[in-house]
Amino acid sequence: MNPSQKTGPTDTVLRKAGRGDLLPIARGNAMSAGACDNAFDDCDRAAVYRAIFTRRDIRSDFVSEPIDDAVLARLIRAAHHAPSVGFMQPWNFIVIRDMGRREKVRDLFLSARMQEEAKIAEDRKELYRRLRLEGICESALNICITCDRDRANGSPLGRWHNPEMDLFSTVCAVQNFWLAARAEGVGVGWVSILDQSALKALLDIPDHVVPVAYLCVGRVSDFAPVPELQRKNWRQRLPLADLVMSECFGVSSDNSLARAIDGLAEDWPGS
Amino acid sequence: MNPSQKTGPTDTVLRKAGRGDLLPIARGNAMSAGACDNAFDDCDRAAVYRAIFTRRDIRSDFVSEPIDDAVLARLIRAAHHAPSVGFMQPWNFIVIRDMGRREKVRDLFLSARMQEEAKIAEDRKELYRRLRLEGICESALNICITCDRDRANGSPLGRWHNPEMDLFSTVCAVQNFWLAARAEGVGVGWVSILDQSALKALLDIPDHVVPVAYLCVGRVSDFAPVPELQRKNWRQRLPLADLVMSECFGVSSDNSLARAIDGLAEDWPGS
Repeated sequence: MNPSQKTGPTDTVLRKAGRGDLLPIARGNAMSAGACDNAFDDCDRAAVYRAIFTRRDIRSDFVSEPIDDAVLARLIRAAHHAPSVGFMQPWNFIVIRDMGRREKVRDLFLSARMQEEAKIAEDRKELYRRLRLEGICESALNICITCDRDRANGSPLGRWHNPEMDLFSTVCAVQNFWLAARAEGVGVGWVSILDQSALKALLDIPDHVVPVAYLCVGRVSDFAPVPELQRKNWRQRLPLADLVMSECFGVSSDNSLARAIDGLAEDWPGS
Repeated sequence: MNPSQKTGPTDTVLRKAGRGDLLPIARGNAMSAGACDNAFDDCDRAAVYRAIFTRRDIRSDFVSEPIDDAVLARLIRAAHHAPSVGFMQPWNFIVIRDMGRREKVRDLFLSARMQEEAKIAEDRKELYRRLRLEGICESALNICITCDRDRANGSPLGRWHNPEMDLFSTVCAVQNFWLAARAEGVGVGWVSILDQSALKALLDIPDHVVPVAYLCVGRVSDFAPVPELQRKNWRQRLPLADLVMSECFGVSSDNSLARAIDGLAEDWPGS
């Protein structure tokens, strides 16, 4: 794309056109007005926050309904538009539908969970056992999002000091997928209780590729108002003000920002 | 929160009320209708995709304009609502405004960049030198988002097999921050060319805490239509169809999904 195009209209919005197709409509020229005009209008901004606040890690609320390939394609494209270090786009998306394979992944989960349970503090074991932690076979499909660590061979921009940045880029793709899925009414659950080398063997993943996220994806009966682990008293949400620091680690936030945090309206259940 | 609340209205939408405050308005009861009713309406869904597709890694387009603390508080809250393994919420947010400290961080960047440049392939060094890779002192403020690896001591749910999951949770918080910032018209740039131990010393970050992301945050003149590294020919966007696989790594996507990917409208410049 020619750099001169940068001076053209840069902000567009999708509107429904005809049979559910999304088409771009120009929405003013961001260059012609002040910087604040780069902000979305209130409704669009609220929609983004709505996706962020109502996204859930789904385990038990999947319903037996397929996902349209058109929807799945949009979710994968959203993931593909994540930021990536040196624009290396290290991700792949393995879509797993075969129930035999999914049952094998669930077996991996079950055995990993048993190993993890042994490490959980005695007084929390009972609660741990009651938690539902995956929907591998109940969801419409699974997706493994991987990171190809060799993709930027020869031009490792931004990875010399922090080689894990490609893994982090892949996680950004996961979060894009997750938020887009929320907007589409599709639930996502991230299964992290899996032995990585066993999973790699099961999905023929080569040595230089890391399975960053194993996701269960499907329609759901409900997006619960608060995270399941909060509702089941595994852990409560931490007070935001305690997490914000000023200039250096451990130094309380400055007064003005602290007041702004205190003044945040509770827009969403559990927020 | 009582589990019975789960059966109440679960979907709300923010609407502007009075002086810019965002208040929740009930929007029907998701339990009373089919699963697809969990999807956002077309406009809200488009707003989420708009944030995803028009988000940019900002380096050179910052303008000298402050960020309201109310906006900053909203962005940090959005980050705090990221998914986290075992709901451990491992993040902290260090807001850095002091120019003296930022100049020291920029010095770290400059020396790290020189080290990295030595590793770049000969035929790309000239282009590498021309790339703008940070806006540490030009942005309104910097934020370091950290991961406290000890936060879930005694209940490491979901981390026995994959201990890096807490870092990945923190990256999800970064991506939430980034997308919310796009909706607020605020630019974000992730500086990954930094020596982590030197950065930790400068920000008094203790041993058990990892500085996952160092972000430059500020108002911008423009969100460019395509990523800067793409525009400057460092790398092009990979064709999405090549990245999608079916059942196992290396197996081309099934025909139906491949067709759906081919059929995606080019909704956004560069998408």
